[in-house]
Amino acid sequence: MSEFDLINQFFKTAAVKREDVILGIGDDCALLSPPPGKILAVSTDTLVSGVHFPITTSAEDIGYKSLAVNLSDLAAMGAKPAWVSLAITLPEADQQWLKNFMQGFNELAEKFQLSLVGGDTTRGPLSITVSITGFIDNPHTMLRSNARPGDMVCVTGNIGDAAEGLTAVLNNFDINDAYQYCIKRLNRPDPRIEVGQLLSRHHVAAIDLSDGLLADLNHICQSSNVGAVIDLNKLPISKSLLDISNHQPDWGKILTSGDDYELCFACSDAVMDTIKDALLSVDMQITHIGHITDSNIIECHLEDGSVFNTDKSGFNHFADEK
Amino acid sequence: MSEFDLINQFFKTAAVKREDVILGIGDDCALLSPPPGKILAVSTDTLVSGVHFPITTSAEDIGYKSLAVNLSDLAAMGAKPAWVSLAITLPEADQQWLKNFMQGFNELAEKFQLSLVGGDTTRGPLSITVSITGFIDNPHTMLRSNARPGDMVCVTGNIGDAAEGLTAVLNNFDINDAYQYCIKRLNRPDPRIEVGQLLSRHHVAAIDLSDGLLADLNHICQSSNVGAVIDLNKLPISKSLLDISNHQPDWGKILTSGDDYELCFACSDAVMDTIKDALLSVDMQITHIGHITDSNIIECHLEDGSVFNTDKSGFNHFADEK
Repeated sequence: MSEFDLINQFFKTAAVKREDVILGIGDDCALLSPPPGKILAVSTDTLVSGVHFPITTSAEDIGYKSLAVNLSDLAAMGAKPAWVSLAITLPEADQQWLKNFMQGFNELAEKFQLSLVGGDTTRGPLSITVSITGFIDNPHTMLRSNARPGDMVCVTGNIGDAAEGLTAVLNNFDINDAYQYCIKRLNRPDPRIEVGQLLSRHHVAAIDLSDGLLADLNHICQSSNVGAVIDLNKLPISKSLLDISNHQPDWGKILTSGDDYELCFACSDAVMDTIKDALLSVDMQITHIGHITDSNIIECHLEDGSVFNTDKSGFNHFADEK
Repeated sequence: MSEFDLINQFFKTAAVKREDVILGIGDDCALLSPPPGKILAVSTDTLVSGVHFPITTSAEDIGYKSLAVNLSDLAAMGAKPAWVSLAITLPEADQQWLKNFMQGFNELAEKFQLSLVGGDTTRGPLSITVSITGFIDNPHTMLRSNARPGDMVCVTGNIGDAAEGLTAVLNNFDINDAYQYCIKRLNRPDPRIEVGQLLSRHHVAAIDLSDGLLADLNHICQSSNVGAVIDLNKLPISKSLLDISNHQPDWGKILTSGDDYELCFACSDAVMDTIKDALLSVDMQITHIGHITDSNIIECHLEDGSVFNTDKSGFNHFADEK
């Protein structure tokens, strides 16, 4: 089977057709017609086998996650998803693997009405690069640089599950229901597209949690030239993770591990008053975990008010090099 | 050095700033403002070390070529380059390597006024995925499906040099001036952006030669439901390649080897009459090498009129698999 057969069989058949795609897969370029007046939000992420997912991860989960992590970037900009390119490097032309991969990929593409418009299929060590485009109206409302001292800091959903799922997979733990839940959170993150679009109508500072709460909140703080205080006892922890940890969460791990793909955002009390009813309508748990300060550090407070120290600041690909 | 330091040092400093880039590298997404009324042409290519370039290729040449092959796709659609994303997977954070890579990349980005707007930096086996966006006015003029029986088939520049350069590199030949020229053609292809934009004002069928003349012309023939006859003695061969081959070109190799990155296009005599003066103005050699037929095969004719047979149809990543 040639790369062209693969493209015809697995990629050209993708389910979502959009009117703004003039020409999809099959020529030198995709041809796309952007809607008048909209701003394009574009994000690119590479997932490398053994780095971004355990080598034992199923093809379907890899396909799902490749798209989910990009959608999560669009969520953090409040963008409405539209077009996606898929560059996939494979050790061999394994049709069953590709079929399963595309099943996971298409599950999310269909959910968010994303058209697969192009890409590349090459031979080499397994790696996937997805580039996604969405539309926004206002380019200023969701920037990392929007945080101000006094803003509340909030996160969607729960954090720390994916890190525990990864520990279970890498160490071949016996998988009970609680671990099963955490592994699902690792392999099948829910991009918070609806919440992102809702937030984008207001002035907030937002980021998605890919590298760990501390590292990602630090991006907001550096971009906004502010600091933050986080109350650890307010962090939203799932029942599964509480069970696994006997209600003694490993704060260091939770703060510095990646793959949560929740949104973290800072906004004023006034903005929160305006949006809280709408947030209820999308049925998403939002937790107020701290506030923005005029310092230049992030402090994490334990329940007794003492400061919790961690020497790891989050996932960093080249952290051990000079 | 962290991935964020790498991004700040090597990617944020890219030279070209465009007014349509509202937000470049440094937030969850790039924010881009497409010009009213234009169609976006988008192409993505992955280059894997040892597959798309010899592992001995210099970082500067890899940087140049990563962008050149994508620009070549824009050329084949007649698009004007605008924005580019760079996803780079590296075994280690080698600053000198990255500096050299970006020097080659920026040489072309500056030439064509391309803004580097985003990407990803990850650790793993060396591989580069570039996604590029350009603008066009008319989505119908350059399609592979535009060829009609009787059209002339033309190519820009010379073909076959890059394949000979690759042979020389892989076999450690003594490098004389002729091989030096072919290796430069392998590592530093010239994307034919100006010719592409000129052609795009007329009705042509175009493709860029990445996988070999036969394979790529076959894409035009299949998309247009036509065939072609190629006169081998008309193929444009450089003086260097003629010298290397003692004026006995290896047609099989020239027809089926990739990496020429010239444009191949089919157009009517009337269109050629209209554009030939303009083609002179961009100082680009255009060679008429054959014509489109109403058959469904591509025939290559030797000087005496006999048919030349080749059993290889061009580069194919997974050709040896079922």
